[in-house]
Amino acid sequence: MGKLRADISMSLDGFIAGPNDSPDNGLGDGGERLHQWVYGLKAWREPHGMTGGKEGPDSDVMAESIEGVGATIMGRRMFDFAEEPWGINPPFHNDVFVVTHRPREPLLKEGGTTFHFVSSIEEALKQAEGAAGNQHISVAGGASIIQQLLTLGLLDELQVHIAPVLLGGGRPLFNGMGKTIELKPARVVASDTVTHIKYQPAKK
Amino acid sequence: MGKLRADISMSLDGFIAGPNDSPDNGLGDGGERLHQWVYGLKAWREPHGMTGGKEGPDSDVMAESIEGVGATIMGRRMFDFAEEPWGINPPFHNDVFVVTHRPREPLLKEGGTTFHFVSSIEEALKQAEGAAGNQHISVAGGASIIQQLLTLGLLDELQVHIAPVLLGGGRPLFNGMGKTIELKPARVVASDTVTHIKYQPAKK
Repeated sequence: MGKLRADISMSLDGFIAGPNDSPDNGLGDGGERLHQWVYGLKAWREPHGMTGGKEGPDSDVMAESIEGVGATIMGRRMFDFAEEPWGINPPFHNDVFVVTHRPREPLLKEGGTTFHFVSSIEEALKQAEGAAGNQHISVAGGASIIQQLLTLGLLDELQVHIAPVLLGGGRPLFNGMGKTIELKPARVVASDTVTHIKYQPAKK
Repeated sequence: MGKLRADISMSLDGFIAGPNDSPDNGLGDGGERLHQWVYGLKAWREPHGMTGGKEGPDSDVMAESIEGVGATIMGRRMFDFAEEPWGINPPFHNDVFVVTHRPREPLLKEGGTTFHFVSSIEEALKQAEGAAGNQHISVAGGASIIQQLLTLGLLDELQVHIAPVLLGGGRPLFNGMGKTIELKPARVVASDTVTHIKYQPAKK
C-alpha cells in the first residue's frame, strides 16, 4: 500500500493564505507569495501542460511529491476557489476526492482528473484507497483536512514548504488543534527560495 | 560592527511556549519540549558550567550562536521567569539589557553577566551597541522583542530552531504583526531532533 502524504506551502509565521481569503481571492491578500518558489519549476510546469522550467532541488522535491500518486484528497474550499484556474485539464491526472457537505455528481475533466464529492474525511480515505491501489494518496489541503488527518493520527508524511516570508496575518495551517502531536523530521531540502521539511507525524 | 542576531526555538505550529505560561510556568504546559534538542549538547552545557555533552551539527549551531557575542537583549517576561533557574552564574557572561517599564539598579551576577534594566528597545540597542563594541548583539527573546525588531527592520539575522512538534496552543512567536516582512534563507542545518533555519530579514 502507498503512503498518505500531505504537501503544503506555509509562511514562517504559519499561514497558508493571506488575509481576506474568499472564493474570489482563494490565496488571500499576498498569498501568492507562498507559492512563488513553485511557479517556475520544471516539475510544476509539466503537470500543468507547459514545457521548460528550472531544474534543481526544488523541482526534485516537487517531482517526488507528484510521483506515484494514485489519488488525491482535498477540502471543499480549495476546490471551490481553484476549479476555475485549474481549467479543463487540472494538474492532478487522477481521482480527486473533495470533502464537502454538498454532495454532487462526479465531475470529469480532461487528462485523467475526475473530482468525486464525498461527505466525510473517512469516506474520502476509503474511496481514495480503492482508487490509488498500491500508489500514494496525496492530501492537497487545505488546513482543515490536514488538521483532521493529524488529529486522527493517519498521515504518513507531512511535507511543509516554508516560504521565507512573514505574512502577518491570514489563514493558519495549524490553528487551535488543542493537542500536542509529535513529528519526526525525515528529510530537509533547502534552497534560496524555500525550505522543505518532511515530517513523519506520530501515528495511531 | 557586529550583527544583531535573534535565536529562538519554535514549534512547527509557531509557539515559543506552551499554553498557560506565567512567571511560575515560564515555558507553559509542555513548552520544555521546544528546548529538548538543546539540553544534552556540549555547546549548551559549557556556558552553563557543565562538561561533556553531545557534539555534532546541533552543538555547532549552538556554539556559533554564542561565539563572538558581546551583549544580549531580552524582554522582561523572559528575565522574570528565568532569573531564578539561571542561578548565581547565568549562561550569558556579558552585559544583558532587559527591556522593562520598571527601571531598577543593575544586577551583577558571577561569570561576567550583568543585567541592566532599560525602558525601551531603542535604549537597549544603544547601550548594547556600546557594550558589544565590534562583537555581536544577541537577542534572546521573547516574542515581543523579536517582533519589534523585525517591524523596525533592524535584525541582521533571525535563526529559528524548529522543534518537530505541534504544541496545539501557547504563546506564538509571530502573532498579529499585521504586515508582510520578507526573509532570505541564509543557511539551513538539519538533524533528527530539530531544523535550524537562519534568515536575513529585510532591513530598513
